[in-house]
Amino acid sequence: MRKAGTAIESPRFSSLEKLRAACLDLPSGDLKAAAVAAERQGQLTKPPGSLGRLEDAVVWLAQWQGRSMPRLDRVDILVFAGNHGVTARGVSAYAAEVTAQMVANFSAGGAAINQLARTVGANLHVIPLALEQPTADFTQALAMNEDAFLTAVGTGYEAVSAGVDLVCLGEMGIGNTTAAAAIAAALFGGGGARWAGRGTGVDEEGLARKRSAIDTGLARHAALLRDPLSSAAAFGGRELAAILGAALAARHRRIPVEAAHRMLLGELRLAPLLDLAMRLGEGSGAAVAVSVLRAALACHAGMATFAEAGVANKPH
Amino acid sequence: MRKAGTAIESPRFSSLEKLRAACLDLPSGDLKAAAVAAERQGQLTKPPGSLGRLEDAVVWLAQWQGRSMPRLDRVDILVFAGNHGVTARGVSAYAAEVTAQMVANFSAGGAAINQLARTVGANLHVIPLALEQPTADFTQALAMNEDAFLTAVGTGYEAVSAGVDLVCLGEMGIGNTTAAAAIAAALFGGGGARWAGRGTGVDEEGLARKRSAIDTGLARHAALLRDPLSSAAAFGGRELAAILGAALAARHRRIPVEAAHRMLLGELRLAPLLDLAMRLGEGSGAAVAVSVLRAALACHAGMATFAEAGVANKPH
Repeated sequence: MRKAGTAIESPRFSSLEKLRAACLDLPSGDLKAAAVAAERQGQLTKPPGSLGRLEDAVVWLAQWQGRSMPRLDRVDILVFAGNHGVTARGVSAYAAEVTAQMVANFSAGGAAINQLARTVGANLHVIPLALEQPTADFTQALAMNEDAFLTAVGTGYEAVSAGVDLVCLGEMGIGNTTAAAAIAAALFGGGGARWAGRGTGVDEEGLARKRSAIDTGLARHAALLRDPLSSAAAFGGRELAAILGAALAARHRRIPVEAAHRMLLGELRLAPLLDLAMRLGEGSGAAVAVSVLRAALACHAGMATFAEAGVANKPH
Repeated sequence: MRKAGTAIESPRFSSLEKLRAACLDLPSGDLKAAAVAAERQGQLTKPPGSLGRLEDAVVWLAQWQGRSMPRLDRVDILVFAGNHGVTARGVSAYAAEVTAQMVANFSAGGAAINQLARTVGANLHVIPLALEQPTADFTQALAMNEDAFLTAVGTGYEAVSAGVDLVCLGEMGIGNTTAAAAIAAALFGGGGARWAGRGTGVDEEGLARKRSAIDTGLARHAALLRDPLSSAAAFGGRELAAILGAALAARHRRIPVEAAHRMLLGELRLAPLLDLAMRLGEGSGAAVAVSVLRAALACHAGMATFAEAGVANKPH
């Protein structure tokens, strides 16, 4: 695991407008490599399509790696950590100090993501973002000003190394499901009642406080809600902004990226690769998905074709 | 991989009544070990329940292994192969010879299950059952007489080694989704229209022939449908009977067993651990599930408790 350290200032994005332009300037994947991979899948000794979403996964990796025989030799799991001023509203079952304690637990190797990273042969990098400076309570003010937001996004962007075969993104931050729910509400409509869940396991009264904090924040920052980047700065946190930056870097560098699966997938009309009722965060869902991707690649690269194996294919 | 060989006669079950008695004499798992495992899950550095079904999987392994810290050091994947007389009815997209060709492909290491077994660190054993003697066409006669059925069940039973930590069961046999659908219809009601799917990818006319063959078989063997074992003999095949025997052996020896996930889970009111639209057979779904189980165990054994890590637990 990379030694945890405080995030450094990043000059990657000097203004919200430059970040916005980078978000709109996205390369497409390699459709030729994807087509060659799909063609091979049709030749392997199995009924067409019978490996289900393992076949889709291979084609997706081929498209973004630009290789018809994709690989997962180097997988990075990036876990960003941040603290949230909105915890003052009593929105979490845990105290804000737990964020730093869990980062120490990551360093000592005792968290779930340590075990999962080792199980799937991935490199774990934990990146705390100014834990001693929580974002502002978004019910009272902007969680981050533009500079702080751009610094966090840039830190995430820089955390993605060139030459990585797959990046998994995760988060740790007491209070951050409140911020995430507020951002989702800003992007897709509905208020705290639609988007807030129990997070780490808050009780009924805590859930009511969480929904109320989100609705208060949505009202306070109503003028910003039409803009996704301004909403992300308004609600925080630094670690969610860093995930934005890391996903953007992965897309620019054509590195496939697995984010944890959440309720947002419904809005995005995507089906999760796994549906294991996990709600831990830390990138734990993405880490388990790596083993499914490895299985998909093993079949793609190691299976015999019908011709190679001397197996009679379908007559039609 | 164990060298493929012809199944030998097994004296394990000398009559249908003795097999029936063995099916009803099932030990329960170790509920104490399960409770200790669940207790540990509550102490680990994560919100309670936040690893979702990974936590359930650990408790299930603990119950059947009788160990609160379960292990997956030795995982056996058993793939049974058989031939089906009902292929004469034109129910499959592939020729019956493909069963033997695929067994050769398993031996050569070129099938999907070879790659998946290697990926999850499991031992693959392929066990062909009298491939040169297809079962009888069940639309015309009993697929197997009692002796042939008991021999196949016994072969499956003997294939499960004591001391294995997990057994995954799979099948290969052109025509066997027709037999499996007929057995499901016999057990749970409904006819070919309810239970038959496209299998390896049969066309519209083939699907109609498949449904018709099932309905013809259900009518011919109507007097046997109340009895599950007689139905299994009536419709075949040998490889499905061997899976029955292997599952029974695993239960008697308290070895956890992962069977491939299918439409039957709905009737059994079970949720599949994975839902990847796989329909290959060969034990491929169970093999992918092993990686999820390994991830679950890694968290169970490797994570720090709240006390060990010095992380503040919830106040309540």
